[in-house]
Amino acid sequence: MSEAQFKDRSPAHAALGTQFRRVALIGDALGILGWDQATTMPEASAEGRAEQIAALSIMQHELLVDPSVRDNIQVALAASAPEPGGDWVAANLREMERAYLNAIAVPGALVEAAARANAVCEVQWRRARAENDFAGLVPALQTVIDLVKEIAAARGAALSLDPYDALLDEYEAGTRVAQLEPLFGELARDLPGFVDQVLEHQKSRPEPVLPEGPFPVATQRELAVELMSALGFDFQAGRLDISHHPFCGGAAGDVRITTRYNEEDFTESLMGVLHETGHALYEAGLPASWRYQPVGRALGMAIHESQSLLVEMQVSRSRPFLEFALPRMQAAFGGHGPAWDVENFYRLYTRVERGFIRVDADEVTYPLHVVLRYRLERALLSGDLPLADLPGAWNDGMRDLLGIVPPDDRMGCLQDVHWPSGAFGYFPTYTLGAMAASQLYAAAKRDLGGLETGIASGELSPLIDWLRANVHGQGASRTAEELLTSVTGEPLNPQVFLDHLKHRYLGSG
Amino acid sequence: MSEAQFKDRSPAHAALGTQFRRVALIGDALGILGWDQATTMPEASAEGRAEQIAALSIMQHELLVDPSVRDNIQVALAASAPEPGGDWVAANLREMERAYLNAIAVPGALVEAAARANAVCEVQWRRARAENDFAGLVPALQTVIDLVKEIAAARGAALSLDPYDALLDEYEAGTRVAQLEPLFGELARDLPGFVDQVLEHQKSRPEPVLPEGPFPVATQRELAVELMSALGFDFQAGRLDISHHPFCGGAAGDVRITTRYNEEDFTESLMGVLHETGHALYEAGLPASWRYQPVGRALGMAIHESQSLLVEMQVSRSRPFLEFALPRMQAAFGGHGPAWDVENFYRLYTRVERGFIRVDADEVTYPLHVVLRYRLERALLSGDLPLADLPGAWNDGMRDLLGIVPPDDRMGCLQDVHWPSGAFGYFPTYTLGAMAASQLYAAAKRDLGGLETGIASGELSPLIDWLRANVHGQGASRTAEELLTSVTGEPLNPQVFLDHLKHRYLGSG
Repeated sequence: MSEAQFKDRSPAHAALGTQFRRVALIGDALGILGWDQATTMPEASAEGRAEQIAALSIMQHELLVDPSVRDNIQVALAASAPEPGGDWVAANLREMERAYLNAIAVPGALVEAAARANAVCEVQWRRARAENDFAGLVPALQTVIDLVKEIAAARGAALSLDPYDALLDEYEAGTRVAQLEPLFGELARDLPGFVDQVLEHQKSRPEPVLPEGPFPVATQRELAVELMSALGFDFQAGRLDISHHPFCGGAAGDVRITTRYNEEDFTESLMGVLHETGHALYEAGLPASWRYQPVGRALGMAIHESQSLLVEMQVSRSRPFLEFALPRMQAAFGGHGPAWDVENFYRLYTRVERGFIRVDADEVTYPLHVVLRYRLERALLSGDLPLADLPGAWNDGMRDLLGIVPPDDRMGCLQDVHWPSGAFGYFPTYTLGAMAASQLYAAAKRDLGGLETGIASGELSPLIDWLRANVHGQGASRTAEELLTSVTGEPLNPQVFLDHLKHRYLGSG
Repeated sequence: MSEAQFKDRSPAHAALGTQFRRVALIGDALGILGWDQATTMPEASAEGRAEQIAALSIMQHELLVDPSVRDNIQVALAASAPEPGGDWVAANLREMERAYLNAIAVPGALVEAAARANAVCEVQWRRARAENDFAGLVPALQTVIDLVKEIAAARGAALSLDPYDALLDEYEAGTRVAQLEPLFGELARDLPGFVDQVLEHQKSRPEPVLPEGPFPVATQRELAVELMSALGFDFQAGRLDISHHPFCGGAAGDVRITTRYNEEDFTESLMGVLHETGHALYEAGLPASWRYQPVGRALGMAIHESQSLLVEMQVSRSRPFLEFALPRMQAAFGGHGPAWDVENFYRLYTRVERGFIRVDADEVTYPLHVVLRYRLERALLSGDLPLADLPGAWNDGMRDLLGIVPPDDRMGCLQDVHWPSGAFGYFPTYTLGAMAASQLYAAAKRDLGGLETGIASGELSPLIDWLRANVHGQGASRTAEELLTSVTGEPLNPQVFLDHLKHRYLGSG
């Protein structure tokens, strides 16, 4: 099935195809404008760029909520009948309907008010974080929270969901509190003790040694390009650039990732690049024949994160990958001595530490950071937690879950941009993604004989081909749950993730 | 007067303001996408970028031809009455009407067919030029010409203009064959003999010496940035990058120019940068309070070219500027010896030569290249010249006007991208711009005492301020002819240009 088939279909189908194609192309233009803003744009041009982005976003929204979209979806749904290859057509219609319902759910004035409040709060947050001034952020953040509540209520009403479920659903369709509660409850119960065990076990191994620099930026970039290429990143249809916060962006057929370099330590940037490469491979591997249609898009943030974490956590931090990569690192930097040893790099890249900062956390403690935020954002939105009490609740939660208390709010509740920018319901996707990554990688090992032996000798294409066939090339033709079930044999199962952690951090893995 | 005043005006005015603001913001997004395409985009992403650009262009067109635009313009025009500051409001309405009439003139299907034909032909032209295969280009180019004829007829009918005038009008409003005929006739009659005189005179002066390189790209860029900054280019709101064909692009408040470097010869790239800086200063100096409205835009291509040529030809190739710039060039490259002398650089930068290639031509022979193209494109469109006969007609014209015959079509009628990309009626703006540049610079010298003495010691801001006040800051509030008349005291007068040439190339200038 391909987009071309719209031509042979009903006028309603054809009109929808045209409309959503335009929505997607505006999205691609926004992707390039966003990339440019983060990497290239001169400082004083921020205001103009915001105007351009706002104008395109509003037009995109107007296209989605056009009454013809609703009418054509109804006509097309009524006419739908089973036919060869019809799954994709049906899934595309379903995704169109979802996009329409999501767009119509929130009144334009509320979207605009929230966008403005988020922008204001994000600016204030930068200052507040720098000055450790939580109290100063409260008024702006309260406004953001009040508007998020309104949005959650509006989305919930339109989609027949509880308000917080309606927020979760925006980032990964189908995610529900009913699923998260037992999952995160289990993590909150078991992981703190597990962290103790891991730290104890870690003591029995030598301390990892950080290789000594300096590591010139140009060389770091060459190495990154070499490893990205080995993983199948196509530099004819993508780029690697520098930005303050690493991300994967760009457009269909033009996937752009970013990193930042530290000349004293190349290991962190390199792993960041491999993480973003996982995102990029997903985008690049989406089904070309459905490009610009909703079903040709990636699934939500949890499945997206599963792809970055599969490449980073499951593959790149593993011994087999390090056996392949280390000689390349040595060749790039002329490294020699005790630090330049697979076992040392493995210890470095699997080191566990109780820390205050989520983005610096290892894969064992990371879920605890997420559970904390999940609990706190639910309490903030339900009203159980007054905003003024957030710092105390944060510190209590850190003590309970991680056994440490941040010295100040900079290292505590002021560290993340998510809430100031209005992103509530996003944090859980990180841990859902980590679980899905474990489960998918286990399935790949099951399906592909000798996968890790191959990786150790640089044979990465079997894995990438498997991901393209089973995940990337599926686009949004199945829900996340359908995809996991079909590929791995079961829906999300946290035990696979916990087994991975046990194997890697307590066993010989 | 500012955009904010729309809020106090009639609903028709307010609606127009909103609509045209959106048109402008799409234009800015297109500006960034176009810049990225030429400087940054990975090769294989061309198709996707073309789709993005097509989608945004169509939406921009749809906004312009919306019936509400016509209706609101009629209401606003009917309600217009003289009032303080009303000139800009009236001019903005006039520009809105012009934009509407231009957009509605050509049916969407024809615009689309032409865009497609131009894209196809441009690709074929690259191959044809490389292979010197004019015959192979004929079918695609004939299609382009046929569609341009249709467009010219449609525009002519809508704007009550002769077809070729309708094409000219698109690039610089108000330009007519009736004006060009005597002008270009005079050039065709007088310039060939003048070139003989200049070449004779040139023999009496020493041959210029090209400074010896290599000149590292990074140093060339630093020098370019230094001179651009001296001319008032703001790097907080603009950029200098590399592209195969230099251009000035970007968006409002984010003006981006490009160049390409040759490590054996820095002089050509440097002059190219100064040329694009002239364009950039125009864009950057447009009236900020009318940003995103039609009256806040630059005038057409002729006036735009006048700004680049004023900075390049009138200023940067003059002795006073070279007195200022040479020490900076020497400091940058550590240059010393006989080449590093103001008189040598002046001879280098004002060297006249009969050549085959327009873009390499000096300011004396350049108009002859333009006259040739103007005559040929009129003949191609009228049907007087069958396309198959173009190479012969080209070579005959070169013999008549420049006294030389290209050895092949690569150096002849295949050299320019304009016709293959559908740009007929564009070439005349280069020479109109050169004339306007002479006339404006003469007026600046008249208005500003000691201008050139100042320039020699690096005082460039009086000229830039004068240009901002008299040209850049005027936006499209006056027509090109009104602007020239108001600023210089007369409409376009080719004699000022010819006097400049005489002074510089036969006199002591």
